[in-house]
Amino acid sequence: MAKLIFTYGAMNAGKTTSLLQVAHNYEERGLKTAIFTYNDCDNNGSCFCRLGVSKKCTIFNKETDFMEVDLADASILLIDEAQFLTKQQVFDLGRITSLNDVPVMCFGLRTSWQGNVFEGSSALLGLADELREIRTICCCGKRATMAMKTQSTDNKSEEDIGHDKYVSLCRKCWLLSAKSGGVTL
Amino acid sequence: MAKLIFTYGAMNAGKTTSLLQVAHNYEERGLKTAIFTYNDCDNNGSCFCRLGVSKKCTIFNKETDFMEVDLADASILLIDEAQFLTKQQVFDLGRITSLNDVPVMCFGLRTSWQGNVFEGSSALLGLADELREIRTICCCGKRATMAMKTQSTDNKSEEDIGHDKYVSLCRKCWLLSAKSGGVTL
Amino acid sequence: MAKLIFTYGAMNAGKTTSLLQVAHNYEERGLKTAIFTYNDCDNNGSCFCRLGVSKKCTIFNKETDFMEVDLADASILLIDEAQFLTKQQVFDLGRITSLNDVPVMCFGLRTSWQGNVFEGSSALLGLADELREIRTICCCGKRATMAMKTQSTDNKSEEDIGHDKYVSLCRKCWLLSAKSGGVTL
Amino acid sequence: MAKLIFTYGAMNAGKTTSLLQVAHNYEERGLKTAIFTYNDCDNNGSCFCRLGVSKKCTIFNKETDFMEVDLADASILLIDEAQFLTKQQVFDLGRITSLNDVPVMCFGLRTSWQGNVFEGSSALLGLADELREIRTICCCGKRATMAMKTQSTDNKSEEDIGHDKYVSLCRKCWLLSAKSGGVTL
Repeated sequence: MAKLIFTYGAMNAGKTTSLLQVAHNYEERGLKTAIFTYNDCDNNGSCFCRLGVSKKCTIFNKETDFMEVDLADASILLIDEAQFLTKQQVFDLGRITSLNDVPVMCFGLRTSWQGNVFEGSSALLGLADELREIRTICCCGKRATMAMKTQSTDNKSEEDIGHDKYVSLCRKCWLLSAKSGGVTL
Repeated sequence: MAKLIFTYGAMNAGKTTSLLQVAHNYEERGLKTAIFTYNDCDNNGSCFCRLGVSKKCTIFNKETDFMEVDLADASILLIDEAQFLTKQQVFDLGRITSLNDVPVMCFGLRTSWQGNVFEGSSALLGLADELREIRTICCCGKRATMAMKTQSTDNKSEEDIGHDKYVSLCRKCWLLSAKSGGVTL
Repeated sequence: MAKLIFTYGAMNAGKTTSLLQVAHNYEERGLKTAIFTYNDCDNNGSCFCRLGVSKKCTIFNKETDFMEVDLADASILLIDEAQFLTKQQVFDLGRITSLNDVPVMCFGLRTSWQGNVFEGSSALLGLADELREIRTICCCGKRATMAMKTQSTDNKSEEDIGHDKYVSLCRKCWLLSAKSGGVTL
Repeated sequence: MAKLIFTYGAMNAGKTTSLLQVAHNYEERGLKTAIFTYNDCDNNGSCFCRLGVSKKCTIFNKETDFMEVDLADASILLIDEAQFLTKQQVFDLGRITSLNDVPVMCFGLRTSWQGNVFEGSSALLGLADELREIRTICCCGKRATMAMKTQSTDNKSEEDIGHDKYVSLCRKCWLLSAKSGGVTL
C-alpha cells in the first residue's frame, strides 16, 4: 500500500537534499520519478540544494490539478516546497496514493515566520501516513523548529521564501526574538 | 530543555491509555502531574481508557487560560482530547514548555470524520517539538488513520465525540465509504 | 506487506500496557491474536501490566520453535519479554512476517543492567522493519534508557527480571552510579 | 543534554549524504565538526556521497581511542561506517555524549550481507538515545533493509564494503535470494 509522506524541517535543514537523494535512489533502480516544485521567483524549474546538487523538475502552483497530471510511468511523486499546496491538492495527493497506489513524498516547512501553519502543511500534517522530520540547529545549539526574518519585515508575505532572508531558531530563541521584534503571537 | 509533544492517533487507538501510563510513570517517581481533558458531556472530570483504567483530571474548555493555571509543582502537563484546544492555547502551551521548562504532552485526533484538521491539532502538528503516532487498524487489516461516523450524520458537529459513534478506517476504505456516504471531500 | 516491529523501552516504561492495547484493538475488530511471554518464575501464563490489566498468553522459552507453532487464524503475533528470544527465533519471526505475511510485534528491553545488548534484542534491533521506543523517565527527570539493580548484585544473571529489583536511569545517572557500584563497563 | 544518535540504513540509502548535510548545517552556523570514517581501502580520508559531494575527515580503526581524541572545540562528532566501531568504542562515545555533553551522530549499516548484526551496530542500537532510519528501495519497490552480495562470495569478510558489490533488498527478496544463494541463515 503506497504512502503519502510529509517530510518537514526548518529552513535550511536539508529538505531538498533529501528529495534529491530519494530521486537518485529510485533512478538508480531504473524507476522513473515525477518531481515538482513551487513556482517562485528564485526557481526556474530546478530543485537545487545547498550542497550544490540540482535536478530538473516541474513547476506547480495553486491551480495545478494533480489528478490531471500524466503520471503513467512514474514510480513516485516528489514535491518540494509542499507548504504551498492547497488543501484540495493535498486531498488529491491522498487519493493518488491510496487509489492509484503511487507513493507521494512531500517536503516542506511547517510554519511561517509568524508561527502560522501553512495551508498545505496543515493538510499534510493531518492526512499524511507518515511524518518525518529533518533537523537543523539554532545558533544556541538546540534543535531549530521555527523561522525568523533577518531582513526588514516590510514584506509580510508568507510566500516570500528566499533562503537568505531567514534564520532557523529553536522555539525559545524565536519567542524571545519575536517578543522584541514586534511579531504578535 | 522541556518539549511540547503531540501524540496523535485515530479514534480508539489507545491515546488515553498512553496518557495514563505516562502519568503512572511520573507518579511512581514521586513527581506530580497536571492532567486535563476537554469538557464534553460524556466526561465528568476523569480520563478513562478502554482498557478499564481511569484517573481524576481537570476539565479545560476553549476559555481556559493555561498561562493562569497554577502549575507550581507539576513536573509535566498532560492534555487529553487536545484536538479541541484553540490555536492560542497551543501557543501558550509552547510558551510554558520553552520559557518555564515544563514538558507538555498532548494527546488527540488529527482530523474530523470529514477529513478536516482540528484547530488544536493543526497548531500542535505545526509547533510541537515531537510528533508521535499511536496506531490502530482498519477492518481491512491496514493501519487506520481516518474516522467514519457509524450513525446517522444528522449531527454534523465535529465536536460530537462519543467513541461508539465512529469507526477508524484506513484512507482507502475511508475514501471509498465517503464517496458513497455523501461526504464532500 | 506485514512487518516485524520491535518496541523497546527501559524497565517499567509500559511495554506490556502497549502490548495489551494492541491486542485489545485487534480483538475489538474481531481479529485473533497470539500472545507469547517468556517462561520466568514470576509469570504463570499471563501478561500483566502495572496499570492493573492482564491477559492469558502462551509461554515461550529458548527451545520454542515458532515455525512449528500453529498460527492458522491469528492476525498478529505479540511477544513480550522479547529480549530473551534467541537469534534463531528472531530469524524465524522474520520469516513468518515476510513469507507468511503475518505481522509480528515484539516488546522488550534493549540492554541488561550491565549495559550489554540482549541476544534477542540485538537480532531484533538489526532485523526489525520498524523500531519504536516507549519512554520513561529517570529520577533526574531526563529520559531513562538504562537499568540499574537496586538490590545486592549477588545474582549476576541477566535473566533475573523481577521489576522491583531495578530502577530505570538516564545514561548519565547510570554511568555515575555504575562507576561507584563496581560494574565494569 | 547531548544525544548519541545512530542513523542506520541499507547500502546506498544516502547515509553519507545525510552526514554531510549535518556537517554543512553546523558549519553554516560557525560551529566546528569532527568527522570520522573507517580505514578501508577505498577511502583516503574523505567522506564522499553518491550525489557527488565529499569532505575531508579523520580515519578511525579498531584501535582508535575516542577518549583521547582532541575534541576541544568540536560542537559535534560525526562518524561514518559506524558498524565497524567496537563495542568499547561505542561505550566511550556514550560517555563523551553524557559526561562531556557533546552530541555524537553515527551513520552505518545494521547487518552484514549474511544478516548478522555488526558489533558496532549492535552496541549503537542498544545504547543510542535515538535511532533514525534512512530508507531506500528494493528492486521490487518495497523498502530495502538487507544487503546481498552481487559478486562471487569468495570474499566472506563482513568488512568487504565496496558499494558496487552489493544490492539492497527487502527481507522477502533477500530471504528468497539467500535461500538459493547458499547463505545459511
